[in-house]
Amino acid sequence: MTRFKLTIEYDGGPFVGWQRQANGASIQQALEEAVEKFSGEQVVVYGAGRTDAGVHARAQVAHLDLAREIDSFRLMEALNAHLRPAPISVLSAMEVADDFHARFAATERRYLYRIKNRRSPLTFDAGRVWLVGAPLAEDRMQAGADHLVGHHDFSSFRAAECQADSPVKTLKKLTVERVGSEIHVRARARSFLHHQVRNFVGSLKLVGQGKHGPDWIAEVLAAKDRTKAGPTAPPDGLYLDAVRYE
Amino acid sequence: MTRFKLTIEYDGGPFVGWQRQANGASIQQALEEAVEKFSGEQVVVYGAGRTDAGVHARAQVAHLDLAREIDSFRLMEALNAHLRPAPISVLSAMEVADDFHARFAATERRYLYRIKNRRSPLTFDAGRVWLVGAPLAEDRMQAGADHLVGHHDFSSFRAAECQADSPVKTLKKLTVERVGSEIHVRARARSFLHHQVRNFVGSLKLVGQGKHGPDWIAEVLAAKDRTKAGPTAPPDGLYLDAVRYE
Repeated sequence: MTRFKLTIEYDGGPFVGWQRQANGASIQQALEEAVEKFSGEQVVVYGAGRTDAGVHARAQVAHLDLAREIDSFRLMEALNAHLRPAPISVLSAMEVADDFHARFAATERRYLYRIKNRRSPLTFDAGRVWLVGAPLAEDRMQAGADHLVGHHDFSSFRAAECQADSPVKTLKKLTVERVGSEIHVRARARSFLHHQVRNFVGSLKLVGQGKHGPDWIAEVLAAKDRTKAGPTAPPDGLYLDAVRYE
Repeated sequence: MTRFKLTIEYDGGPFVGWQRQANGASIQQALEEAVEKFSGEQVVVYGAGRTDAGVHARAQVAHLDLAREIDSFRLMEALNAHLRPAPISVLSAMEVADDFHARFAATERRYLYRIKNRRSPLTFDAGRVWLVGAPLAEDRMQAGADHLVGHHDFSSFRAAECQADSPVKTLKKLTVERVGSEIHVRARARSFLHHQVRNFVGSLKLVGQGKHGPDWIAEVLAAKDRTKAGPTAPPDGLYLDAVRYE
């Protein structure tokens, strides 16, 4: 038995999310079927982050075990061949120790949220960014974001369906940067609550357009009440950007 | 009569190109139909660059004349409303002098060519980059590109169907830069021959993968013979990036 670590890019648009579900195609299922097609083995592919429907990944990390001996480069090539034409691409595969676990060994997850801040409709980026027509002040958004960094009870930014044991998390970094007509919100933490990044962005957008001051974010955080925060930003703009291990 | 200058973004994938043609939908036609839908006026929309089938624009420039009085912001909004769901977006509209001509007054055109240089298949970027699996050395490509800058007879990089009077053009700038897993080739000139940028990229790719030395580009240029150069790079990676006026 050999354990492999995969790094995977995908367009989340056509999927119900990372995780296998009864109601539609998931990325996990597509990968598991690709493994079975070339090896005949039925495996579970464990992902570091269970991205939601429509959420993308630039570098999801997953692991799987294979009984059959196979070179890691050939594994990558075989998976990509059998994944076609799904918009899922295995960027790398490598052998890892038997105790490596993509989800439980991850020490940091990094997300990127892309807002296209312009009046005109989307072309190339339809489904891949959140289009916000109202002008956003990224400096105000950053000032709001600064209130969120650190060890907090994030109940105000937690989805009702969140399965985490506790709403307390440590947010390592939250930056807001303008890149041409886009605003990029980047978040780093060991782990996140369900919808946490999208809920951050939904509230920071209100600050950016001047509906609230940056300090409103501190009030929302202190309230520990989801109804006090802004709406959840759409999945289109969210990317699992990197996963770190020791 | 008022003349308007438009700046337009489009995904060239579903179109036969900028220019009206009998065999399919063009960007020019989509714009002209959008104008007619909201104003009832039949106009010609003149573009600065006649991009080919599958070629994209981040900032194509065009002009049109309207008899009806309309504010330029409302023109932009009306065009975008009537262009839906085509992947064409008017980024800005402004009134210009009656002698402004998008094509003939342009003093510089800038193109970007995106190569995704990796082994794994495309996801998000399918149709928007050229996927090249063989590792490319961007410094070698730049050394090759340096031979092309300046005033030359570019017959070796000119499509057979090119309608320009002369194969002699002045290439102001040609840069090759690695941006993560992509290689960006940027070209600037007053005007280009048909397929010139794609033909540059097709040859520079051969230099990047080591099939020829950088000086081979000088030989190809000197030959003034299209058959000596590399194949034409696909349209997917090409973007009309900007058009400059005095």
